[in-house]
Amino acid sequence: MRIETLKKAGLATLASAGMLALTAGAAFAADAPKPKAPTMGELLTASKPDDWRPLDPENTVYLELANGRVVIELATGFAPQHVANVKALAREHYFDGLAIVRAQDNYVVQWADPDSENTNLARKILQAKKTLPPEFERSADVGLPFTPLPDGDVYASQVGFSSGFPVARDPKSGKIWLVHCYGMVGAGRDTAPDSGGGTELYVVIGQAPRHLDRNVTLLGRVVEGMELLSPLPRGTGPLGFYEKPEQRVPIKAIRVAADVPLAERTALEVLRTEAPIFKDVIESRRNRPEDWFHLRAGRIELCNVPIPVRKVIR
Amino acid sequence: MRIETLKKAGLATLASAGMLALTAGAAFAADAPKPKAPTMGELLTASKPDDWRPLDPENTVYLELANGRVVIELATGFAPQHVANVKALAREHYFDGLAIVRAQDNYVVQWADPDSENTNLARKILQAKKTLPPEFERSADVGLPFTPLPDGDVYASQVGFSSGFPVARDPKSGKIWLVHCYGMVGAGRDTAPDSGGGTELYVVIGQAPRHLDRNVTLLGRVVEGMELLSPLPRGTGPLGFYEKPEQRVPIKAIRVAADVPLAERTALEVLRTEAPIFKDVIESRRNRPEDWFHLRAGRIELCNVPIPVRKVIR
Repeated sequence: MRIETLKKAGLATLASAGMLALTAGAAFAADAPKPKAPTMGELLTASKPDDWRPLDPENTVYLELANGRVVIELATGFAPQHVANVKALAREHYFDGLAIVRAQDNYVVQWADPDSENTNLARKILQAKKTLPPEFERSADVGLPFTPLPDGDVYASQVGFSSGFPVARDPKSGKIWLVHCYGMVGAGRDTAPDSGGGTELYVVIGQAPRHLDRNVTLLGRVVEGMELLSPLPRGTGPLGFYEKPEQRVPIKAIRVAADVPLAERTALEVLRTEAPIFKDVIESRRNRPEDWFHLRAGRIELCNVPIPVRKVIR
Repeated sequence: MRIETLKKAGLATLASAGMLALTAGAAFAADAPKPKAPTMGELLTASKPDDWRPLDPENTVYLELANGRVVIELATGFAPQHVANVKALAREHYFDGLAIVRAQDNYVVQWADPDSENTNLARKILQAKKTLPPEFERSADVGLPFTPLPDGDVYASQVGFSSGFPVARDPKSGKIWLVHCYGMVGAGRDTAPDSGGGTELYVVIGQAPRHLDRNVTLLGRVVEGMELLSPLPRGTGPLGFYEKPEQRVPIKAIRVAADVPLAERTALEVLRTEAPIFKDVIESRRNRPEDWFHLRAGRIELCNVPIPVRKVIR
């Protein structure tokens, strides 16, 4: 959750406002006293248990680093083959001992087998696949849910959310696809569209690189632990690759959550992007009710909408 | 400069393409062999000396950190009072010995006087001003240049560039304003619009927080050294503030470049956003000619357009 104040002293001004009904899409009229709309924080505090869904351990992977765990939700509805392959790779311990090899400022961090181009040293793939046909987009006919955003988009005719992921849709082509917002996870590839498969994964750490949409298979989203990836030192080689082996960030393991003992799992819930409350969250970010805002934007761009995640309280 | 390839092996495929004329706005037709459009790198290689302008040392400040220098170009055309005040603060050494006190993931880093709320310990301001009236927007009548982007925007009716800065414009109100893209620098404030002034400055390190546009005075842009700010450890307090004093990142000094001996300055040039070549650069990013791209976006969002900067070769 992100609350605005851009001066230290402003912290004191974040007193909470009354919880009142919210009129979606209402214009902000500075001259008319209006019932105070709820902030996102207030909406989440007032949420009901059913507004949240637990992560499915079969569709969650943990990237284990020396300083903590990055939790990735897999988008099985959008990239079923890539998701299955990343899980297969994780289950044969393909990633264990590999490394984050690239951190390009305002763009991506990426992990891979540093020796992938050396036939003798390259990590062997057992049951999983090395490459796969691309899953850049899906037919909207498969019935994936879609919660639209009302404010348009520079890159696509429709944008919104589907099962917790930012997506775009094109009614003409009948396609729907995942979008490169902050924290999205994709499968690196070479020039050929079918040269990826999940052995090299990247995470967006900067301004949404939307020109990559439908050019790479996105397969998930970091739901916890971005602060372990986004502050990595930027690589000084071309494209942000680390120039020296010792600069790389070792990966202890990638594990499917279902394979981790229950007590060691990270129990998280994601706000349902199909629940009515999510529309209120969107509205609370289109027109920020916090007193700090002198001018409410009245609009929001897809990658600025937070998808709330919380710890499960057991 | 940023070149795409999302797999290690793809590095080898970045052979340069022929340098040919570019038709702005041309649709990408996959079935028709077309003259290869130049990449941004090729355009810059072929640029003329007059396509670039040196930074004005009177409108450039250096944020000096233990591990290097961050170079900030000041937007004197958009925030003349704030720019003058930041320079005055720098010249009375207000910032020297203060610290980066906040790093909020996917949002901002910010520096300030950690003791600003303690009357006894707070850094004294001598000639500069503590606060200023806001400079959230400017009348378009002042004649600031404007290079428009063709692809629209979620937040504003017109967006483009002015003297090296990303801007938005509203013909109805006759206003033009700086936009919160990655690397933009603003003056933190409390709830009152006139409570900022430049004593606390923030830099955008994540997805463009466009809801801040016209809510805070932006006054510059980091043109070199983002990789010293964006990887700072994220603060674990509310809003990303560091919880312990020892976590803060000390500021050695902020200096106006003109006050630094010539031999110690960072000699940089910025591509003129009013020069014809910049339109070609925009086109090279709207329709990426690199072979890696399976689908060219044909569009670009304001904060995805790079504003090229290079070292002056003397």
